[in-house]
Amino acid sequence: MDRPYVIGVDLGGTNTALGIVDRRGNILFRSSISTLGYTKGKDYVNDLGNTINDLIEKNDLNDKIKGIGMGVPNGNMNDGTIENAANIPWTKGTLVPLSALMTEKTGLPCKLTNDANAAAMGEMAYGAAKGMKDFIVITLGTGVGSGIVSNGQLVVGHDGFAGELGHVRIVRENGRLCGCGRTGCLETYASATGVARTAQEYLAAQPERESLLRDIRQRPITSKDVYEAAIKGDQLSMDVFNLTGKILGEAFCDFIAFSSPKAIILFGGLAKSENLLLDPLKKAIDENVCFVYKGKTEVFISKLNDAEAAILGASALAWE
Amino acid sequence: MDRPYVIGVDLGGTNTALGIVDRRGNILFRSSISTLGYTKGKDYVNDLGNTINDLIEKNDLNDKIKGIGMGVPNGNMNDGTIENAANIPWTKGTLVPLSALMTEKTGLPCKLTNDANAAAMGEMAYGAAKGMKDFIVITLGTGVGSGIVSNGQLVVGHDGFAGELGHVRIVRENGRLCGCGRTGCLETYASATGVARTAQEYLAAQPERESLLRDIRQRPITSKDVYEAAIKGDQLSMDVFNLTGKILGEAFCDFIAFSSPKAIILFGGLAKSENLLLDPLKKAIDENVCFVYKGKTEVFISKLNDAEAAILGASALAWE
Repeated sequence: MDRPYVIGVDLGGTNTALGIVDRRGNILFRSSISTLGYTKGKDYVNDLGNTINDLIEKNDLNDKIKGIGMGVPNGNMNDGTIENAANIPWTKGTLVPLSALMTEKTGLPCKLTNDANAAAMGEMAYGAAKGMKDFIVITLGTGVGSGIVSNGQLVVGHDGFAGELGHVRIVRENGRLCGCGRTGCLETYASATGVARTAQEYLAAQPERESLLRDIRQRPITSKDVYEAAIKGDQLSMDVFNLTGKILGEAFCDFIAFSSPKAIILFGGLAKSENLLLDPLKKAIDENVCFVYKGKTEVFISKLNDAEAAILGASALAWE
Repeated sequence: MDRPYVIGVDLGGTNTALGIVDRRGNILFRSSISTLGYTKGKDYVNDLGNTINDLIEKNDLNDKIKGIGMGVPNGNMNDGTIENAANIPWTKGTLVPLSALMTEKTGLPCKLTNDANAAAMGEMAYGAAKGMKDFIVITLGTGVGSGIVSNGQLVVGHDGFAGELGHVRIVRENGRLCGCGRTGCLETYASATGVARTAQEYLAAQPERESLLRDIRQRPITSKDVYEAAIKGDQLSMDVFNLTGKILGEAFCDFIAFSSPKAIILFGGLAKSENLLLDPLKKAIDENVCFVYKGKTEVFISKLNDAEAAILGASALAWE
């Protein structure tokens, strides 16, 4: 008997959103619970499992659900666990066998992976990567994450933690300090926070240069400020995007030499800066990619609906 | 009916060596033909196919051969073709459908891939990567090649040309000119030729410094010279290996962030320098790898017999 629906769960630091999804990527029914207020994984699973069971029951979908997919910060796809996820107290110092607990509670198979891998699965199941076997999703948010698909499968590595492309070192000498404790990682330059850092550096290094960003005095500059100034024609802000795109493009040349993807798909807040970022990025690829790969890899911004992408991506795991 | 043998073919610039191989990686029967003297792929295939058919016939192995695997410079695994391989005139400007032609001639399924990918398949079928699903083979010869295995499958990319890790850029400013036309590629530093270049640079930059390498005047210094001087205790030569290992190790940290391999296996001429290279390489990984991966990836030198490795690697393709 073919089961036509899956459940996607997006476990965020504050809320957990979930939905029942069909094969075309329509979210038919939704629900959510708070992620906060739990000290034990079992209690969280109990509430989440009840919410899922109720949603299935209420919509008369018993025996119609193929499984559950979860997008989980720090989630390990190989063994279905979560440990030491920032902002989730019930994972601190404890390895929580989340997918096994969920299966116990709901009777449904459950797979989980991290957010960027879930985004890649979503693109493959419902998005622009439908039919592609080799592509990379790069998430550009506070940090830089990645989901790599090769031969139609997620690259998860022997330990489940492959695909930390935000932590390839793009600047080997005097690079910026990264949250991981090292210097020069891609995400110190090419994330939303990286854009803000570049803007602050440019403003400090060129004190005579005019910029709309100088009007911001009461609070730290954000990547959104830089974006808004750039679309108003502020040259310094445009230069910030030019550098960001160039650094990303040069990093992508190395990623292309690794897995020769058909596409690299950008996702997340910073990707909304569209051509401000894409133009210098594509130029840097054209100028730097090894001749073997020249003109072969498309780079574009995800077309999945922002509000739905996280649930959809997670749900895609459950079709596998 | 289970067919217990495969044929491995190592297509080299001068000779083509082949062997009939069992499941344990024993080469039972061997033969070879010259790769030279052909202007058309069809003529080469005709002679190679006859040699294979004779070898099968002579040893009474009709119906015992599962297939043919070929290690081929520039070979494209996705479509079984070869084109513009250096030193192989019958591939210049022509896309030769080598594996289709071989099947037509021998009646056996035939797969091909490039040398580094074949090496990876050999490690997985018969070598130190037996049972591993995630590892990388790095070939350190005149250039730097790579075969990447993820989820138990070769990473070949959408076009069949993935895994050119010799061409990730390890030095982004004022890097060495590479044969690919760009600068700063890993192989300009970490190959046999890279070692010789580093030695020449060190000798020129420190004219007062003593070194056994200064006795070599009539010909260019080779990586073998540097190795031999280093094992005699020549400090400048040891420094060359220290830099080479450090650069390789730093590059490996990025590879680890990509696919989180259980092992990185070194292969080829330069790998024979053993601890001269391995010690600084492992130190650089320890000092530079992202904490997520710390202490997880083994790095070691291939234990496959040199004289057999190329045939074995190619043959491993035919088991798939």
